[in-house]
Amino acid sequence: MSPWWPETTWRAMRAGVDCPMCADAHLPSNPFGILVTELPATYVRLHRNQTRPGYCVVIAKEHVPEVHEFDDETLVAFWRDAADVGRAIEQVFSPVKLDSLIMGHRCPHVHCHLYPLYPSDDPYKPVDIGEGDRFLSDDELLPHAQRLAAQLGG
Amino acid sequence: MSPWWPETTWRAMRAGVDCPMCADAHLPSNPFGILVTELPATYVRLHRNQTRPGYCVVIAKEHVPEVHEFDDETLVAFWRDAADVGRAIEQVFSPVKLDSLIMGHRCPHVHCHLYPLYPSDDPYKPVDIGEGDRFLSDDELLPHAQRLAAQLGG
Repeated sequence: MSPWWPETTWRAMRAGVDCPMCADAHLPSNPFGILVTELPATYVRLHRNQTRPGYCVVIAKEHVPEVHEFDDETLVAFWRDAADVGRAIEQVFSPVKLDSLIMGHRCPHVHCHLYPLYPSDDPYKPVDIGEGDRFLSDDELLPHAQRLAAQLGG
Repeated sequence: MSPWWPETTWRAMRAGVDCPMCADAHLPSNPFGILVTELPATYVRLHRNQTRPGYCVVIAKEHVPEVHEFDDETLVAFWRDAADVGRAIEQVFSPVKLDSLIMGHRCPHVHCHLYPLYPSDDPYKPVDIGEGDRFLSDDELLPHAQRLAAQLGG
């Protein structure tokens, strides 16, 4: 048996049927984090898991399953948004490195994990965004989200 | 002691001093794989580790350490190239999902791992580009690189 999703399930997920990101990417708070701001092509969210401070997720407004399926205008706008958020994370949190990770194995709606690394990270260890247990409440996340939003002009 | 690179080392790596990607991204063959084609802003390479067929690395021609440090023109050109390669990988290899991973912890010269997933992959398992041992020779890689280059008009 294939460990990947059954073909009909995956096809529906790709098509956006009951897509959880379509439902909650724009909400002020959801189980995964809080909204930082809205940019031209994306919603920017601060992830609740702040084991690595500044970890954000930049979520396309439009449901598209793969980056290479964006039309050119949306592709350009998406990556401009992600770069703007990357600069804001650098200014506010000063990580040593900032990864940009597009996966979406459980939710094929294009979103980019902007994942900061710090001096306590080992450059030889594969990155794992699920690592760590520093989960913050909305109240704890809010001042960080506000600093990012201020950098983003929000 | 910090597991990350010493500050002076990291600063030199970021600045491109003795950058291995500046030295070998354009070569027909290097220890990591073979050249597929040259696109406007990038060199496209087929990785020697073909545990997941179609795994490519798209490497910026210019030495820039972080995506958000590209100027706007290069940012746009880089992601257009990556999207074109993504479409070519999909056409040639038909993965179920294609990840776009920018890390560079050991070489901060922007490069995007286009990492295909297949039905034998578990969507709940964190991705690890170092996984597997199906390393191919230049001769074995060549026909796959040629199919990709043909899709890319090269």
